[in-house]
Amino acid sequence: MAHKYVYLFSEGNGSMRELLGGKGANLAEMTSLGMPVPQGFTITTEACTDYYASDKQISAEIQAQIFEYLEKLEAITGKKFGDPQNPLLCSVRSGARASMPGMMDTVLNLGLNDEVAEGLAKLTDNERFAYDAYRRFIQMFSDVVMGINKDYFDMALDGIKEERKIKFDNELTVDDLKKAVCEFKGIYKRETGEDFPSDSRVQLLAAVKAVFSSWENPRAIYYRRMNDIPSSWGTAVTVQSMVFGNMGYDCGTGVAFTRNPSTGENKLYGEFLMNAQGEDVVAGIRTPQTIEQLGEVMPQAYRQIIEIAEILEKHNQDMQDLEFTIEKGKLYMLQTRNGKRTAQAAIKIAVDMVEQGLCSVEDALMKVEPNRLDSLLHPQFEPQALKKAVPIAHGLPASPGAAFGKVYFNAEDAKEAASKRNEPVILVRIETSPEDIEGMSTSKGVLTARGGMTSHAAVVARGMGRCCVSGCHDLIVDYNNKVAYFGDVKVYEGDFISIDGSTGNVYAEKLPTVDATLSGDFAKFMKWADEVRTLKVRTNADNPKDARQARLFGAEGIGLCRTEHMFFGKDRILPMRQMILAKSTRERVAALDKILPMQQKDFEGMYREMAGLPVTIRFLDPPLHEFLPHDDDETSTTAYEMGMSFTELKTAVKRLSETNPMLGHRGCRLAISYPEIARMQTRAVMQAAINVNREGIKVEPEIMIPLVCDAAELNFVKGIVDDEAKKVFAEQGMTLSYKVGSMIEIPRAALMTDEISKYSEFFSFGTNDLTQTTYGLSRDDASQILDDYFKNRIFEYDPTTKLDQSGVGKLIRMAAGWARQTRSDIKLGVCGEHGGDPVSIQFFQSAGLDYVSCSPYRVPIARLAAAQAAIRSRDEK
Amino acid sequence: MAHKYVYLFSEGNGSMRELLGGKGANLAEMTSLGMPVPQGFTITTEACTDYYASDKQISAEIQAQIFEYLEKLEAITGKKFGDPQNPLLCSVRSGARASMPGMMDTVLNLGLNDEVAEGLAKLTDNERFAYDAYRRFIQMFSDVVMGINKDYFDMALDGIKEERKIKFDNELTVDDLKKAVCEFKGIYKRETGEDFPSDSRVQLLAAVKAVFSSWENPRAIYYRRMNDIPSSWGTAVTVQSMVFGNMGYDCGTGVAFTRNPSTGENKLYGEFLMNAQGEDVVAGIRTPQTIEQLGEVMPQAYRQIIEIAEILEKHNQDMQDLEFTIEKGKLYMLQTRNGKRTAQAAIKIAVDMVEQGLCSVEDALMKVEPNRLDSLLHPQFEPQALKKAVPIAHGLPASPGAAFGKVYFNAEDAKEAASKRNEPVILVRIETSPEDIEGMSTSKGVLTARGGMTSHAAVVARGMGRCCVSGCHDLIVDYNNKVAYFGDVKVYEGDFISIDGSTGNVYAEKLPTVDATLSGDFAKFMKWADEVRTLKVRTNADNPKDARQARLFGAEGIGLCRTEHMFFGKDRILPMRQMILAKSTRERVAALDKILPMQQKDFEGMYREMAGLPVTIRFLDPPLHEFLPHDDDETSTTAYEMGMSFTELKTAVKRLSETNPMLGHRGCRLAISYPEIARMQTRAVMQAAINVNREGIKVEPEIMIPLVCDAAELNFVKGIVDDEAKKVFAEQGMTLSYKVGSMIEIPRAALMTDEISKYSEFFSFGTNDLTQTTYGLSRDDASQILDDYFKNRIFEYDPTTKLDQSGVGKLIRMAAGWARQTRSDIKLGVCGEHGGDPVSIQFFQSAGLDYVSCSPYRVPIARLAAAQAAIRSRDEK
Repeated sequence: MAHKYVYLFSEGNGSMRELLGGKGANLAEMTSLGMPVPQGFTITTEACTDYYASDKQISAEIQAQIFEYLEKLEAITGKKFGDPQNPLLCSVRSGARASMPGMMDTVLNLGLNDEVAEGLAKLTDNERFAYDAYRRFIQMFSDVVMGINKDYFDMALDGIKEERKIKFDNELTVDDLKKAVCEFKGIYKRETGEDFPSDSRVQLLAAVKAVFSSWENPRAIYYRRMNDIPSSWGTAVTVQSMVFGNMGYDCGTGVAFTRNPSTGENKLYGEFLMNAQGEDVVAGIRTPQTIEQLGEVMPQAYRQIIEIAEILEKHNQDMQDLEFTIEKGKLYMLQTRNGKRTAQAAIKIAVDMVEQGLCSVEDALMKVEPNRLDSLLHPQFEPQALKKAVPIAHGLPASPGAAFGKVYFNAEDAKEAASKRNEPVILVRIETSPEDIEGMSTSKGVLTARGGMTSHAAVVARGMGRCCVSGCHDLIVDYNNKVAYFGDVKVYEGDFISIDGSTGNVYAEKLPTVDATLSGDFAKFMKWADEVRTLKVRTNADNPKDARQARLFGAEGIGLCRTEHMFFGKDRILPMRQMILAKSTRERVAALDKILPMQQKDFEGMYREMAGLPVTIRFLDPPLHEFLPHDDDETSTTAYEMGMSFTELKTAVKRLSETNPMLGHRGCRLAISYPEIARMQTRAVMQAAINVNREGIKVEPEIMIPLVCDAAELNFVKGIVDDEAKKVFAEQGMTLSYKVGSMIEIPRAALMTDEISKYSEFFSFGTNDLTQTTYGLSRDDASQILDDYFKNRIFEYDPTTKLDQSGVGKLIRMAAGWARQTRSDIKLGVCGEHGGDPVSIQFFQSAGLDYVSCSPYRVPIARLAAAQAAIRSRDEK
Repeated sequence: MAHKYVYLFSEGNGSMRELLGGKGANLAEMTSLGMPVPQGFTITTEACTDYYASDKQISAEIQAQIFEYLEKLEAITGKKFGDPQNPLLCSVRSGARASMPGMMDTVLNLGLNDEVAEGLAKLTDNERFAYDAYRRFIQMFSDVVMGINKDYFDMALDGIKEERKIKFDNELTVDDLKKAVCEFKGIYKRETGEDFPSDSRVQLLAAVKAVFSSWENPRAIYYRRMNDIPSSWGTAVTVQSMVFGNMGYDCGTGVAFTRNPSTGENKLYGEFLMNAQGEDVVAGIRTPQTIEQLGEVMPQAYRQIIEIAEILEKHNQDMQDLEFTIEKGKLYMLQTRNGKRTAQAAIKIAVDMVEQGLCSVEDALMKVEPNRLDSLLHPQFEPQALKKAVPIAHGLPASPGAAFGKVYFNAEDAKEAASKRNEPVILVRIETSPEDIEGMSTSKGVLTARGGMTSHAAVVARGMGRCCVSGCHDLIVDYNNKVAYFGDVKVYEGDFISIDGSTGNVYAEKLPTVDATLSGDFAKFMKWADEVRTLKVRTNADNPKDARQARLFGAEGIGLCRTEHMFFGKDRILPMRQMILAKSTRERVAALDKILPMQQKDFEGMYREMAGLPVTIRFLDPPLHEFLPHDDDETSTTAYEMGMSFTELKTAVKRLSETNPMLGHRGCRLAISYPEIARMQTRAVMQAAINVNREGIKVEPEIMIPLVCDAAELNFVKGIVDDEAKKVFAEQGMTLSYKVGSMIEIPRAALMTDEISKYSEFFSFGTNDLTQTTYGLSRDDASQILDDYFKNRIFEYDPTTKLDQSGVGKLIRMAAGWARQTRSDIKLGVCGEHGGDPVSIQFFQSAGLDYVSCSPYRVPIARLAAAQAAIRSRDEK
């Protein structure tokens, strides 16, 4: 038997999403529920795959099946394609497995030609309707199928209106519309060199092909990348017989949500237009009426919709987004799907549905896309103000939330404006560096011209919960004159701008924001998530403030405290630099002695915030030159502070500089060259732990050694830690238990976990660096490369933000296995950026890890993602 | 039964090297052959391992066994330890599995104390002998066992001689010696705070402990790293009863080689001293007599030595290095081992022994350490001149061979001096960059202040066969004044220096050299190697000259032609820069059009040299900024040449600069961003191949795509190659077969070979970059890190020169397996520096690769190493 590529609605059902796409499967399901659905058939996603495999041709076999099913549809409807006496008209729509609203193409009214239009006019006794449909069809077909600029058609229609001195489409007469049809066909001929196809079958195949092709249009590709939809899925095509809401005032069309998509309120919500086609509702030209008003105009249809809505919501166990058309008083359902909703509504609906007994807790948890929670945790622009605002530039949405503030161009000025004059500040930089941290922390938001989603600015801003737009290529910064150029727009120091870290938009005005509010439903929902998940969720936090924030968001410990972030403060950078530039171990120890009490105090603060939860402290990681001044001005100031000559300092900085700092003298390599650093850090960790323990808070520190690639390295540094800890315990007359473990962030470490685990009580996969070294790709240098790779469809996503499961993930899986062979109870976690990414979290669950760690503002997202991962992996068993 | 840690000589045999060490096993074997060996016992390498595992203590059990065997030895010799009437005196020597001459410690005459010395005097009727032995013992024990500076003893002895106004040791009287003994014991007491131990058993245990400890002395560690000896092996300790060559003129001691160790001549070669201890021969204070002269003095002993030598050589199937002592006319054999020899001798001996039927071809091949061949391929300093010369500095032996020349400090001056004035030139640089290639090529040798064994200078020099000393930290270069400082020594431009790339020594004089000569034996020997090996050996060559050299050395094709090296020539760098700085694809194509004919000509030259052997051409690899000027002077000149402003060029260079160029925009990433580069290179490859094919030389080019990390990348670039090749074939009316493959030099590529091999006809492991990315260690930045790692015994070797089998090797093995699962006939090779390293070659054989590729001068080494690998892997089966 030949492979089946086409299904009648009556042959399918709701579970066939993969084959029929969401739209096709839902139409089949509604059909099987006996609902009034205009009948049709669906061409499967497999046909789409075949299309791409066949060099963008629809095979003869599939063509034959399409026409075979067209005949069946004709039999069902009693109408005939291209028959002026009783014409069948169709819509041709895309429908992928996942909803991709507006990303792909649709053709309506297919089947019209001169004869059919005339026949339709007679049949409906509505000439105006028939020719209006016809001219719309020509325009849509020309645009969607042939790629002709649709402005040509609008201009032609405007010409007719001008000639007739009328303003609105509904003032057009039948003659005007006939003239439009004629002119439109002329445009078609001019642009394609061919006559507009009058054969409906030719129209149909061309439309199907156009829908298949639209799977690969740039916006669809971008949407898939943003939403983790594989390009291999392809789209199905649904061919459905048309019904008309624009045949008169006993007709109409509308959309309805079974619950309020903005608030989640459990009440039918929707709007409709009398005498209109669906696109008129969407286009927003005429103002629609509320769905309640339909009850007054057509009570029977209204009651029927309410009934259907209830059935569909129950049946699909989710809030539904319905499209309907009323043709001459009769209701038709054109579509149902799970409705898009705000995060706030999503939570309320999920909680309500559980409480109404409509779905289980697990099902409710699966209904909310974890990333959507972001918008609940950060301020947003006031929706009304946002609608009117026009962005002056666009960058990467690097850290979510919205903020307005006065522009400052360096961390120092930003800090001064914010702390002394209490101004709201947006820090604008070409790119940020670790020295900018204080300035970033006192700003409302950060905007940079360079850097990707995982640039310094982005990572630090996300950690702090500051909104950030990075990689804004339209931005040119002139530090000397303190002015930023966005194309022609100049923004001076002190001018207001607003940035939206969730969209990447930049505005040259002060847009008001609304604060984040967390409802009681949110707490309830997250508690359910916590009960279901098996992965622990910790946070990456480098100071007590972030630790507190993360605890509020439900973090179960600190998975990564980057001690180097503590060294950039005004009071610390000087002893740090003295340490780095020390000419002897004695000098270095003296500088470290100054740092010790500060670091100890930080640790004490963090232990207190975490109140007994585990705290993992990573030892000094970055290459030392990162702490040294970069430009001549700063070098000169620093040299003065340090009592060195400019040349001396400059030479020292140059000597420490590296060709590839990412692969240089950093991580545990520092502790091996300068054991006194590891000793100081051990001392700070242990003394702080003892002090806080004495306050009655149990602390069991976890020391994490970075950049290990060999068991001997870890063994060496662990030796230092154990030795120094012993000394501290003896001095303090108190012993603590503590753990020593290792980051796995270098491919060789992953390859050697069987050996390294002999000395390691836990491993934390540092997926940022692991991804970069496994790919041989520095994220600081990746911007053009990734652009070119996306353009050429070599990569579908950026592996630094979403874990590469096939390569890096393979390594992680093997590494976890080898580690457990040696030490079956080893604790395995993740502390890279991927620890807050839902798709990656699903992978970490399946790889059998114990916890993820992410920035504080990602913690709720990770908690929900972990719950969903647990549910999915349970379901797979 | 207790574990046996001690063996009498009569309990062991020659096959027990692992347990007894080379020395112990050979003494046991000689004993079993009935040869006159002073008897003794050997404490096993397992006891050494136990010593280190027990925190450097000899366990009670092992101590008990030592004393038990001491008693047995007393029974055998009829002498007693510490008995003045009939004292047993012993030597205590180290003996590892592999010979490590002079690296570890020895104590002679152990068992002496005041009473025994007196007794020995009586017994031998030779008071002078007894007290000479005693003072030597105290000095040796103090130095070796207690670590007391031996200068103290020499000074004391010099004091006595001065007082007595005598010059030589043999002028010392018995009283002088007694006085020396007394003073020596005083020094011992002063330095240790204790009396010199008179209990012989205490002496013995202390000496054994000292020998065990000497396994970890810095020179032993260094020697092991240089010779690939694992530190886990440990050393055995041999305790042997002393015989004395210094009891009078019927005594003597000497060494003999069964064949000439310098030339390989098949004739006993050796020297001896009458009335002397072994150390006197080695110390070279008295001039020894030739072994033939022994025939005149003691004909019987001489005949016995000749007989024993013959037996031992036959028995061990190798040239032997014998130590003997004649005590009162009786011959004793103290040691036999395979003798060290020059490379030339090694080859001659191996060939002679096969022809004499003394060993098989396979055994002969195993006798020559492949790295030793290096000295046959390069000029060396005249041995006599070298003996007298004093180095002024020492760097890394980065590329073997010796050269003298006039110093020049930049490539331009070097080239001019060499090509216009025909001067021998040594190019001295802080470090080299690709622009220096021509200057390096016209120089006799290269000396750099920075950079390791795999720095640019080292890799390029090895490729060219130029000698090179890199990382010479004593060297400071002042480019402005054209002077180099080696400590206090100033060397100006035009001054002569000499450098030895095999030792790393630098001399401030003109040392004469002798040329490399390859004997007929060499050819015969290498032919045997070729018959045995299964791994193919190709070469890395970037120009016809290197290709020719490699062919002479037996290369079977080119495994890596780095096309970028062709772009640095004077005539090419300008169009290359135009290409890089092009503002449009059209401008870039115009620049590429200028490069095309040059590149095509290079390829033609290489195809001709390789005469039908495979030629693998790697597409452009380095980041483009490498081709741009680095300093202001050069920027200014280049800007003028390019018709740009200085600022414009400077900005362009800055824009292209990268944070981590190793992980940046390079390799296939360039071909993806600028497909026109790959098109030009494909065209050059194919047009050249067609032209040379038309000359009657069959060429089947292999195009290799660098830095691939995903199958989609390779598929994309392969698409360009195939498309452009098709065009060339159509234009030329001729088709060729060619292969497209990929480098595997990024961990992700290795992890994804199952996918990538779908598009790849061959893989070449680029172990240089693969090692760096797998370790997360940039070799440009590794120098201090590796120093600290060696110092702290974290690494035993530098993984960039010797393949890391446990990590990188594990990845290669897995990658090879996955690749063959997808494409069973895929050709797998190696083209990193490790391709010329014998130990790594053994690994590549075991991992099942098909070929290695190395620099031309490593080809003979690789051929022999491959033969040995084949023999070993056959033996293992």
